[in-house]
Amino acid sequence: MTTNSANSRFHVALDAMGGDHGPPATVPGAIQALRKYPDLQVTLVGDPEPLRAELARHDVGALPLAVAPSEGKITDDEHPISALRSKPRSSIAVATHLLRGGQADMVVSMGSTGASMATAVMGLGLMDGLERPCIGGNFLGLAPNTTVVDLGSNVDCRPSLLLSFAALGVAFSRRLLDIENPRVGLLSVGEEAAKGNRQVQESHALFTDSHLNFVGNVEGMDFFTDKADVIVCDGFVGNILMKFAQGLGSALGPYLHRQLAALLPAEQLAGIADALWNTTNRPRTMGGPLFGVNGLVMVGHGSSAAAGIAGAIDTGLQCHRMDLVEGFRQELAELRPTSAPDG
Amino acid sequence: MTTNSANSRFHVALDAMGGDHGPPATVPGAIQALRKYPDLQVTLVGDPEPLRAELARHDVGALPLAVAPSEGKITDDEHPISALRSKPRSSIAVATHLLRGGQADMVVSMGSTGASMATAVMGLGLMDGLERPCIGGNFLGLAPNTTVVDLGSNVDCRPSLLLSFAALGVAFSRRLLDIENPRVGLLSVGEEAAKGNRQVQESHALFTDSHLNFVGNVEGMDFFTDKADVIVCDGFVGNILMKFAQGLGSALGPYLHRQLAALLPAEQLAGIADALWNTTNRPRTMGGPLFGVNGLVMVGHGSSAAAGIAGAIDTGLQCHRMDLVEGFRQELAELRPTSAPDG
Repeated sequence: MTTNSANSRFHVALDAMGGDHGPPATVPGAIQALRKYPDLQVTLVGDPEPLRAELARHDVGALPLAVAPSEGKITDDEHPISALRSKPRSSIAVATHLLRGGQADMVVSMGSTGASMATAVMGLGLMDGLERPCIGGNFLGLAPNTTVVDLGSNVDCRPSLLLSFAALGVAFSRRLLDIENPRVGLLSVGEEAAKGNRQVQESHALFTDSHLNFVGNVEGMDFFTDKADVIVCDGFVGNILMKFAQGLGSALGPYLHRQLAALLPAEQLAGIADALWNTTNRPRTMGGPLFGVNGLVMVGHGSSAAAGIAGAIDTGLQCHRMDLVEGFRQELAELRPTSAPDG
Repeated sequence: MTTNSANSRFHVALDAMGGDHGPPATVPGAIQALRKYPDLQVTLVGDPEPLRAELARHDVGALPLAVAPSEGKITDDEHPISALRSKPRSSIAVATHLLRGGQADMVVSMGSTGASMATAVMGLGLMDGLERPCIGGNFLGLAPNTTVVDLGSNVDCRPSLLLSFAALGVAFSRRLLDIENPRVGLLSVGEEAAKGNRQVQESHALFTDSHLNFVGNVEGMDFFTDKADVIVCDGFVGNILMKFAQGLGSALGPYLHRQLAALLPAEQLAGIADALWNTTNRPRTMGGPLFGVNGLVMVGHGSSAAAGIAGAIDTGLQCHRMDLVEGFRQELAELRPTSAPDG
């Protein structure tokens, strides 16, 4: 494991106040991850009092766990940029500051995604050639090799922004999922180039002219048909789809229970419902990296429990090992010549 | 059963050429429906030769089944309006003509939805106050009381059009699902009024000022949470969601098979996978009415087999019994005063 910290451990700055549960989820999550990875080191960033209270409830022994004090947190209902100005010592701001200063190798936060994004853009900077960062990943256990961008940060996207997101998705697919030449599809309502809304029709031409391995439009069922490795949509559609899959997975549990109650013992039923929930609710258990910022920042679902925190750290370690951030940079650099206006 | 035909039977004009399979699906589908409903009468509209060939393969006995000759069909890859001009005697055109002339009470087609829509608009007319028709319905077996509009016909929608679609969805919810005062939600990426793309933000104000029972924004998981009875989105999002659910349902069959193979006999497994497919693939088995045209036109999935044709006729009979078309008219009429610019 290589790091940019002074010692040899990989150093996580964990926004310990972020998410719906705060320290009662983040502290045990950090402990789980530390027990799993001996080369890991975690700094819990948060209000000292609640952190100490939670730490007192665990036997942390000699685990490499430190506390960095911060003041308050930014919530989902605050406007990220103005909240960052009024709370410059918030947990996400301090955690990002540690990464920026080389005192950490990665930030992990279950707090407001908007705040994580704004802090990363202001503190770490956007990659060259990019207007905005995004979120992406293989969010469906039933389609584990399908990478989707954007999953929710950018609701109105110009075609050029969608093209940048596609390049970032390609980097993720290549580095994390080991797909050599990822096929890129534009999510639409029909295969033909003329099918789709104005945004997709305009993007189609731009994608065709790019260096990407563009396979054309794909449809809603193609998350499961192996037509494309990277599916590109704006964050409005991506966010709705991700939450729809989560809702459907949650509704399927009781449905299967009714179907199977007479056939299987309760314990097996519960195991099947759990597996089904996990396969449709991946973002709650594994988190995902911000795409396109100069540093490794993992974000996760606000409702994540301890296992979700540990899962996000786990995913982050994979991103680090595969040098995903450098992959993003390289893909964006390749995009530039062909996406120039005279291209 | 009341009808507007000369005799006392409810008269279906079936586009027998429509869909991926044509007569080998539509003819047995019609026969299934006729055996189920003694008061039904079906006119198969299509090219005489293939219809006769298919009819020869069945014992139709004294079933009230007639043939109306037409010439050719309009396919999915043709532009609906120009195809209607170049093929004025196509099966969908002749079927719609029968409805317009009072010789049929309902049109059923598994052919190009665009062509069914264009024919209905030109032949039957749009309802007052509406710019375009749409498709809607309760497309998820797991959310049987949630009506969604638009499911795919209109990809770029102005807020005023979404408001009309909402009113049509309310009529469907009230008449077909017996919900007295349906709650209307706008599909977005967060509950707050400020969350969403430009289209949703602008629509939010218009919906708030309308007479609708508007409950605000809903999210992807809210198809399953009973927050709203009618969920409104544009046809781009609706079509992607519907196909995504179908794909997910199809992928879940093999997934469950792997999970359960060691626990249950093959026959029970197959039954569970079938039930799951049906609950996520409803549009292939029940069809749905066009919303907002002056007449009852049922459209269905092109891949529908005979059972899907019979299912669409079945759904159409329900729409007829509940006088859905009159319900659409009433809801649109209520919308007009409050949606005026000075309202």
